[in-house]
Amino acid sequence: MMTLDVEELRRRLWRRYREIREPWMRWMLRIQDEALSALRDFLRGEGFIEILAPIIGPVTDPGIRGAKQVSIDYYGERFKAMSSIILYKQMAATALGKVFALSPNLRLEPPETLHTGRHLAEFRQLDLEVAEAKYLDLMELGERMLIYVLRRIRRECAEELEKLGRELRIPPRPFRRLTHAEAVELLREEGFNLKHGEEIPWDAEKHISSLFQEPFWIIDYPITARGFYDREDPDRPGILRDFDLLYPEGYGEAISGGEREYEYERVLARMKARGENPEDYSWYLEMLREGIKPSAGFGIGVERLTRYLCGLKYIWDAVPFPKVPGIPSP
Amino acid sequence: MMTLDVEELRRRLWRRYREIREPWMRWMLRIQDEALSALRDFLRGEGFIEILAPIIGPVTDPGIRGAKQVSIDYYGERFKAMSSIILYKQMAATALGKVFALSPNLRLEPPETLHTGRHLAEFRQLDLEVAEAKYLDLMELGERMLIYVLRRIRRECAEELEKLGRELRIPPRPFRRLTHAEAVELLREEGFNLKHGEEIPWDAEKHISSLFQEPFWIIDYPITARGFYDREDPDRPGILRDFDLLYPEGYGEAISGGEREYEYERVLARMKARGENPEDYSWYLEMLREGIKPSAGFGIGVERLTRYLCGLKYIWDAVPFPKVPGIPSP
Repeated sequence: MMTLDVEELRRRLWRRYREIREPWMRWMLRIQDEALSALRDFLRGEGFIEILAPIIGPVTDPGIRGAKQVSIDYYGERFKAMSSIILYKQMAATALGKVFALSPNLRLEPPETLHTGRHLAEFRQLDLEVAEAKYLDLMELGERMLIYVLRRIRRECAEELEKLGRELRIPPRPFRRLTHAEAVELLREEGFNLKHGEEIPWDAEKHISSLFQEPFWIIDYPITARGFYDREDPDRPGILRDFDLLYPEGYGEAISGGEREYEYERVLARMKARGENPEDYSWYLEMLREGIKPSAGFGIGVERLTRYLCGLKYIWDAVPFPKVPGIPSP
Repeated sequence: MMTLDVEELRRRLWRRYREIREPWMRWMLRIQDEALSALRDFLRGEGFIEILAPIIGPVTDPGIRGAKQVSIDYYGERFKAMSSIILYKQMAATALGKVFALSPNLRLEPPETLHTGRHLAEFRQLDLEVAEAKYLDLMELGERMLIYVLRRIRRECAEELEKLGRELRIPPRPFRRLTHAEAVELLREEGFNLKHGEEIPWDAEKHISSLFQEPFWIIDYPITARGFYDREDPDRPGILRDFDLLYPEGYGEAISGGEREYEYERVLARMKARGENPEDYSWYLEMLREGIKPSAGFGIGVERLTRYLCGLKYIWDAVPFPKVPGIPSP
């Protein structure tokens, strides 16, 4: 945890119109612009189609680790702002094969997460999904995509990087892989009191990220740590075919994704095991009952990518109009 | 007004996962993907920087013609989903010069607007703003941008256009310009009972759009027809320096924009004249009091552009996951 003057931050955010004119913000925004363009160019080159992400819906991804969903009154029904568009990506990938979207997401993170320096209540993911793909395919794609972006930023934004005092290294492929169990063991050795079968807490994630100089994967999360849509390995019950990519140097999570459950009975059982109400997901379950293709995909947070590229201490400096947990601001 | 089987539409929208697999949807989505890419390529070539649009904020554009804003509880404060990001574009253009964003917007349009076939409760604008620009500059940019997109779609999506039975003509520049007063006169001659000083109603807009075979501008709206941010012409009191671009063939509004008011005292007077509460806009007014640059800009609706490019009867067929006014659906 960092010490942070919350009142000072509140005042700064209210007067973002001053900060946005500072040179470092212009350098950051120029790098973000290039990164967005690079991500899309890479994906279009790989045969992906861009789709328009939904903003709201009757239900959204429930697997958001302690954050609250945003509810709205939509013509008399309770709707949610999207916290992730996984359910819609499955629909689109079945139809189109390879899809991506710049997805606007809202998650009312607990106010104390502002002290992690890497949580926002409003953020965007570059979200993608590939029909008939396996999780190892998506990890290979993610590595090539990140390297493509790093090369473009080094080439097109050399001046901005220099002014920000940021050196970006191009990591060799394949990236290192740790299983979730190995990551937990490593963190225990480092003094963290972790249990197997749980998500890795923010402080531990930051610590493990700081141990490495290159991005690395954590794979094979335990089924108890993730939502109902991450596919359980048929050959290894209790283990998911999923992954997170972590940035090095303490920047934490870059990418999160995996293969998806897509069979009606399995999803229903997983929902029940997690205490979800299947009625909330009626359109989704109806779709699964009629049948969709297996798929795998991931999301990469645009603000976290920008923070890493620019070497910024705080995530709210990696977005022009930040929404910091617990601090209402323009 | 078209006759529409609302119950049939409700059933269709609930089972969008079936429709999205139909060939015509794939052709539409491929054209939309190319249009998004073309818009961004054009703007980057013109020196624009892409910024991340806010999704929510303490206040949003009030000038949304009878639609309701979406309210949310944001850490104990009443926040709004963006219905347009004009106030933020002014902030960003002052800092960066030329900016654009793919902006997610929510507007709870009255349920009866579903019968226009061109309203959605959830949509995206390609929103842009240029510091120190005049409204005629932006109209020139808008014409070149639309022609660039039309050429790209004709070249890259010839097969999809043919399958959709759509022929796209490249209109010559400059496009025809009607003043708002001329448009009202023309519509009166066509039998519409319109008054000067008001927005043009949907049915009249559709009609005037159907009279032309090429896109055309309506400029110089009366001050009573638009929000507080559209700039009043200093030489012609009561007339705004603003514009709408209309598609031909009955497709209606393409682009809406203009020069912005940017001086504190003028904006305050305009807010009061429209019955707005200045306290709601405190961060914005504080920014204006400290001073921002004059600017002009516009938004182009992505779904309406897609509808026009594809020649679709209904706007909800121009988006993968449509939100039709009054019909809750995935």
